[in-house]
Amino acid sequence: MAAYHQHPHPEEHLTSSAVLQDIVIGLSDGLTVPFALAAGLSGAVQSSELVITAGLAEIVAGSIAMGLGGYLSGRTELDHYASELRREYREVDEVPHVEREEVRELLADMGLSPATQEQAVRELTADRDQWVKFMMKYELGLEQPDPKRARNSAATIGLAYALGGLIPLSAYFATATPREGLGWSAVITLLCLLVFGYFRSRLTGQPPFWGALKMAGIGAVAAAAAFGVARLVEGL
Amino acid sequence: MAAYHQHPHPEEHLTSSAVLQDIVIGLSDGLTVPFALAAGLSGAVQSSELVITAGLAEIVAGSIAMGLGGYLSGRTELDHYASELRREYREVDEVPHVEREEVRELLADMGLSPATQEQAVRELTADRDQWVKFMMKYELGLEQPDPKRARNSAATIGLAYALGGLIPLSAYFATATPREGLGWSAVITLLCLLVFGYFRSRLTGQPPFWGALKMAGIGAVAAAAAFGVARLVEGL
Repeated sequence: MAAYHQHPHPEEHLTSSAVLQDIVIGLSDGLTVPFALAAGLSGAVQSSELVITAGLAEIVAGSIAMGLGGYLSGRTELDHYASELRREYREVDEVPHVEREEVRELLADMGLSPATQEQAVRELTADRDQWVKFMMKYELGLEQPDPKRARNSAATIGLAYALGGLIPLSAYFATATPREGLGWSAVITLLCLLVFGYFRSRLTGQPPFWGALKMAGIGAVAAAAAFGVARLVEGL
Repeated sequence: MAAYHQHPHPEEHLTSSAVLQDIVIGLSDGLTVPFALAAGLSGAVQSSELVITAGLAEIVAGSIAMGLGGYLSGRTELDHYASELRREYREVDEVPHVEREEVRELLADMGLSPATQEQAVRELTADRDQWVKFMMKYELGLEQPDPKRARNSAATIGLAYALGGLIPLSAYFATATPREGLGWSAVITLLCLLVFGYFRSRLTGQPPFWGALKMAGIGAVAAAAAFGVARLVEGL
């Protein structure tokens, strides 16, 4: 759910990081939200079947919303890049003095001396394509997105969410009452969140044990709150 | 849910964009997932109260998972920046020739001539702080994150999710049966998704009518799928 702003050091694994990031996004939410929803319902209803129905409906809703949302935001990123590229080409053609001044300001901000700025501006703006590429990357911070990424990202996030969501739900299939299901679901899911949080933190170079506790903590707090609210509503 | 990678043109509204982005993230999911879950359940149960209980449990679970997830990923971003900063200072001190060569490569990649590269490397690496700042920004693409951002982001995303989720659910409070609730919920929510999608696209400079249809489409597909799955499970 949350937008995970992870910037792995570029010298390390770059191609796999986009896919891993999508799996992390899908799994974090898939493990926590269906777990907490099912936990909440087990405090309010007597039928395991109802918990399973609601859980599966949530998994389908969540994975489609996340997957399709991811797909469309990937497409938006492509469109945005293309429209900014057109805009920069237009500006370089129509107001070259403004754009040249922007290049100079960027170089000044980096810490170059006025003389070197002059020389560098001349060289960077000599070629139109190179000039626009410089503006895209260093003024706007935009890199050409991979066109296949939108589709792959959608599938990965959606699948990871569904997979993550089936783990806490599986306990309710195997038990007789929602309360019994909740016990097993909590054990299995918190264990998975600990393991997942551990590896996720190692991936981003953060302290892994602390990361494990954080993931499990989010799940536990969300489940406890959902349980409380569902009890409250049923009690009205 | 999905991580929306939006890069508004830096010349436009910068301070508000982070908050708006958080509201957009929270609202997109808040409007779609609880809507789809409630729609799914109305295909399977006879009691509006159950739909409301499950819907509220989902809103609580989702807003905590998103809010807390956003908070912790903001904190991770801070930690990551701090640890990369330490690493760059260390590298500049311990292997200055390697780091100087990295600066030169970045400048070569920009399109500077070898002579200008030499001169620019000398100037950029003259001051240690400026050198590290250059590496952080242009080699790693990292900017100093705002320490307050993590907390604010959590609150904004969580609140937007809860607010968004209460809209589709409100229909079930006011109607006698889940089916009746579903009808009104669909009308209200799809209308909200159209309006929300319209403004969200305008915000990022995308075609607004197309954006409106996309948002409503995600909600409709997720709701229809959840409805289908819940019917299927109940029928077993």
